[in-house]
Amino acid sequence: MNIIDTVADLVTEVREKSPLVHHITNYVTVNDCANVTLAIGASPIMADDIEEVSDIAGISSSLVLNIGTLNKRTIASVIAAGKKANEKGIPVVLDPVGAGASKLRNDTTKEILKTVQMAIIRGNLSEISFIAGLEVSTKGVDASEADSGKDAVSIAKAVANQYHCVAAITGAVDVISDGQRVVKIENGDPILSKVTGTGCMTSSLTGSFAGACEDMFAAAVAGVATMGISGEIANDIAGDLGTGSFRVALIDAISKMSESIMKSKAKFYEI
Amino acid sequence: MNIIDTVADLVTEVREKSPLVHHITNYVTVNDCANVTLAIGASPIMADDIEEVSDIAGISSSLVLNIGTLNKRTIASVIAAGKKANEKGIPVVLDPVGAGASKLRNDTTKEILKTVQMAIIRGNLSEISFIAGLEVSTKGVDASEADSGKDAVSIAKAVANQYHCVAAITGAVDVISDGQRVVKIENGDPILSKVTGTGCMTSSLTGSFAGACEDMFAAAVAGVATMGISGEIANDIAGDLGTGSFRVALIDAISKMSESIMKSKAKFYEI
Amino acid sequence: MNIIDTVADLVTEVREKSPLVHHITNYVTVNDCANVTLAIGASPIMADDIEEVSDIAGISSSLVLNIGTLNKRTIASVIAAGKKANEKGIPVVLDPVGAGASKLRNDTTKEILKTVQMAIIRGNLSEISFIAGLEVSTKGVDASEADSGKDAVSIAKAVANQYHCVAAITGAVDVISDGQRVVKIENGDPILSKVTGTGCMTSSLTGSFAGACEDMFAAAVAGVATMGISGEIANDIAGDLGTGSFRVALIDAISKMSESIMKSKAKFYEI
Repeated sequence: MNIIDTVADLVTEVREKSPLVHHITNYVTVNDCANVTLAIGASPIMADDIEEVSDIAGISSSLVLNIGTLNKRTIASVIAAGKKANEKGIPVVLDPVGAGASKLRNDTTKEILKTVQMAIIRGNLSEISFIAGLEVSTKGVDASEADSGKDAVSIAKAVANQYHCVAAITGAVDVISDGQRVVKIENGDPILSKVTGTGCMTSSLTGSFAGACEDMFAAAVAGVATMGISGEIANDIAGDLGTGSFRVALIDAISKMSESIMKSKAKFYEI
Repeated sequence: MNIIDTVADLVTEVREKSPLVHHITNYVTVNDCANVTLAIGASPIMADDIEEVSDIAGISSSLVLNIGTLNKRTIASVIAAGKKANEKGIPVVLDPVGAGASKLRNDTTKEILKTVQMAIIRGNLSEISFIAGLEVSTKGVDASEADSGKDAVSIAKAVANQYHCVAAITGAVDVISDGQRVVKIENGDPILSKVTGTGCMTSSLTGSFAGACEDMFAAAVAGVATMGISGEIANDIAGDLGTGSFRVALIDAISKMSESIMKSKAKFYEI
Repeated sequence: MNIIDTVADLVTEVREKSPLVHHITNYVTVNDCANVTLAIGASPIMADDIEEVSDIAGISSSLVLNIGTLNKRTIASVIAAGKKANEKGIPVVLDPVGAGASKLRNDTTKEILKTVQMAIIRGNLSEISFIAGLEVSTKGVDASEADSGKDAVSIAKAVANQYHCVAAITGAVDVISDGQRVVKIENGDPILSKVTGTGCMTSSLTGSFAGACEDMFAAAVAGVATMGISGEIANDIAGDLGTGSFRVALIDAISKMSESIMKSKAKFYEI
């Protein structure tokens, strides 16, 4: 089965299984993350206190770790939840928001990666380059244009091999690799960068798919492709009205995503 | 006066009195809670630091306690604010989000109920069953289908009697009881479960009504019915577009709720 | 150049420079703050942990401090980030949400003002009156009607002179002063008060403009005027539908704000 068919099947599967997706995430985009998780057919639970994260991870189908507004209280929770997920064999998705932008984010990212086995790491080119050990020119939490010349394919492969996981780099062109296979996704629209949290939401979608299947490579492609295709649909419907209407149409499109829409809109391929 | 007329009057009353509603709530749905509080005509204030919750509760007309993303810092604040509200005779609404899902949530729910006298407890069947001391099969923060066979009327009555308050169970059919009287609400639409926080928002609406009247039974019915009716209206307008548009239409409908809309759409009755 | 032309130019400038705006803000309206920052052409970063706020402030073009849901953990971060911004010559915008409503907010506001040199302070009449040392009748976080009789011009001037900064009072009529010059803005619509966070968003817009220019007086006028004009446009488009649709149209209007729209809609003047 080619990657498009596999991913399209996953859209049906996540709606049928409705996996519980435990998030430890930032307070900026948490509501959007919960809403896209519901929109794609999964069920979100947000819990970050150290005294309950193991319980919650233990009843979940996947775990999404997002360091967007990390603090000392939640770092310990991230580690504890990640360890529990590893014990139970639940896939863990890491979104290293802003890695490269501060010592705290850098140290925390390294610490998490040392302690928890990731299934999927998803970030922009700056963030994944930081994880690859490259010099980065991060400008806050948004992808730096200065990084756009770098070879995303090599970096994704390197991170996937180094951390024995799937690496997904999102940007103008998205690249997903498990270390050997590489998929490029050409779906998406620049307006996605004008709404906060589309990266975080992509990680939540990825976590939703990861909670509904065994194939982490396909789950990452499905998460990233769902956002890209939904962004195109939303832009056609509402992009001209402004970013407020676009954002509403984006959630609409995710909630309407289906096997047939995925197949008809997919612009991705293995290289 | 029958319950529908009483509740319809309350819609006018909350807009006239514009009660200040103190929330200690989760960071996932807090923005929606603030917006529905404004939409129904009340005024929200969110404050959770232990050093100010008593001050804030002291100037408020009602207090909403929501344990959706509780942590050790805010548990103490919940107790302090609750005690202050009890001292001042201000009604307290408890939303025991995810009670049954972790030891922390269970212990905290029990501790709060032991320390603070509630006016209204609102939750789904899993959460209220937990409070009733029944075995629950909670799946995260969403109502478990496995629980749907239970007798919501008996459970609502039992909790109301045990805690000397009004108990409101929301789900496919909503049941509200003060221990003796019981109202069933048949308003609502399944799409409400596809938007995060409609339960939390219902608690905020309930707290808004509770801050504007003496009749806690009517306030609970008004809060739950406002969400159900607004959900129906929003689904008619925007349900087909997707969950993003539905959510916008839901806030619209709450902001347009009136005595006459309440009367014309009400599908609730005492049993 | 008159103030309207100066402000209209700034709309172009912020889109060209795309300044990074560091926020330490409340969890109620943080998502809206991020989205309006993007909508006006700037780039938001939210970070509040004491271990990273200096790093983040150090790479930013401006800093917005909002005490909407302050707690002990973040107060220290506010001070640290503010000091770093002062060191680096980065403009700091203070939004003293709810100052006057609790001892904690009052003490914290005083402490911040003693420690950090503000470029701009933006609040409603109650909040700015508190800072001016006047008796206030704060009702939670919303402007108190009882305060509306006070002389906003005198208060804005007094605060600007006392704290050597620009003071912006927003309400039915907005008043901005640098201690000598005073601008009155008559743009806006009462429906803005029916959506949570329009004040916070105005501070984020102000911080966005402050990060793109040297003229703090113009930046404050630009921030407040952008919200007022966008509110009028959004009300024309969607006000009748309800507050949910209005809010979407508000973000749309901010994302469409341009030099020419600013010039054609501006109702402000120096007095």
